[in-house]
Amino acid sequence: METKATQPRRRSIGARRNPQTETAIIEAARQLLADRGYAGFSIEEAARRAGAGKATVYRWWPTKADLFMAAYGAEKARAISLPDTGSLIEDLVQHTADLWRFWRTPPGGAFRALLAEAQASEAAGSRLRNEFLPVLFRPVRHLFERAAARGEFPAQLIDERIALWAGFNWYHLLTWQIDADEALLRRVETLVVSTEIRAG
Amino acid sequence: METKATQPRRRSIGARRNPQTETAIIEAARQLLADRGYAGFSIEEAARRAGAGKATVYRWWPTKADLFMAAYGAEKARAISLPDTGSLIEDLVQHTADLWRFWRTPPGGAFRALLAEAQASEAAGSRLRNEFLPVLFRPVRHLFERAAARGEFPAQLIDERIALWAGFNWYHLLTWQIDADEALLRRVETLVVSTEIRAG
Repeated sequence: METKATQPRRRSIGARRNPQTETAIIEAARQLLADRGYAGFSIEEAARRAGAGKATVYRWWPTKADLFMAAYGAEKARAISLPDTGSLIEDLVQHTADLWRFWRTPPGGAFRALLAEAQASEAAGSRLRNEFLPVLFRPVRHLFERAAARGEFPAQLIDERIALWAGFNWYHLLTWQIDADEALLRRVETLVVSTEIRAG
Repeated sequence: METKATQPRRRSIGARRNPQTETAIIEAARQLLADRGYAGFSIEEAARRAGAGKATVYRWWPTKADLFMAAYGAEKARAISLPDTGSLIEDLVQHTADLWRFWRTPPGGAFRALLAEAQASEAAGSRLRNEFLPVLFRPVRHLFERAAARGEFPAQLIDERIALWAGFNWYHLLTWQIDADEALLRRVETLVVSTEIRAG
């Protein structure tokens, strides 16, 4: 790894990020992702666009996947605002339709490449599971928890419902069928929210 | 493409496969997959092991993905027999546990690589969706339809339930968490089979 003259090696810097530099790098990475998608995305090019040292970027985002997730998260936050319809099913329908719409754009569709790369090794898969997913699922978890807090929803099996919701979306993403059909989404979100627990 | 002396080019042969040759090629491909996983899997090596002409194999399975799916399907059929417990939820729990167990073996885990490859282009994704999935989902569809036929299950939304079931499994496969926990599977299959349709 090169270090720039302006970024002498300091072993302790990892824990203390300069917020302005961090923001500049994420914004450069976000624009790079929007311009070039996953294939054209690199730590080097994001550092160059941000006018930051490559070593700095590598120190804060050790892999392409880490910086990608920061950029993807920033772009997703710009593209999607969380609904608040008063109904969990309607919130899920709108949020899922928004997510699929985002996935149809180049920066959103780049998530396919991240999922594909995570299949190359169990280490990449663990990183996806333990570091990226809790952040990615924060918005949908908020929808479930808000509905539970207002008493609409019995708060049963939220983790399992999030896994079903995410799995259904991934299934559609990975099979290239993400033209959101609201009637389909409403049928599926109704099943996801369903409260009846049947005996086997 | 080479043609062997024993396999002169016949333009019409695609429609009429020699069943013995076909069986020999699939069996060779199945063993190759079990020995070497997806990375070591190739049409050339399967043809060599089967003593068949490469051109013959390419004519019947035009891409690596096609021959892989034939081999994967054969290996899956050897590894998994469909349960018949009399309860749809229990059938799903057992079938899913069997599937995850199969995915933990090298030939089963190779399905990750197929999913990853299908992200490279919409054409690869369409092939997965339109040609491979209907075959892969035949066993689970049979479980749903049998339960509906015996009146256990109202036969509502079977396609949506299969997508939820498959999506949940893919989510676990792609995040490398396929150690089947029967209690988790029972909670999830109960949601998948749930009959209550709530108003939004």
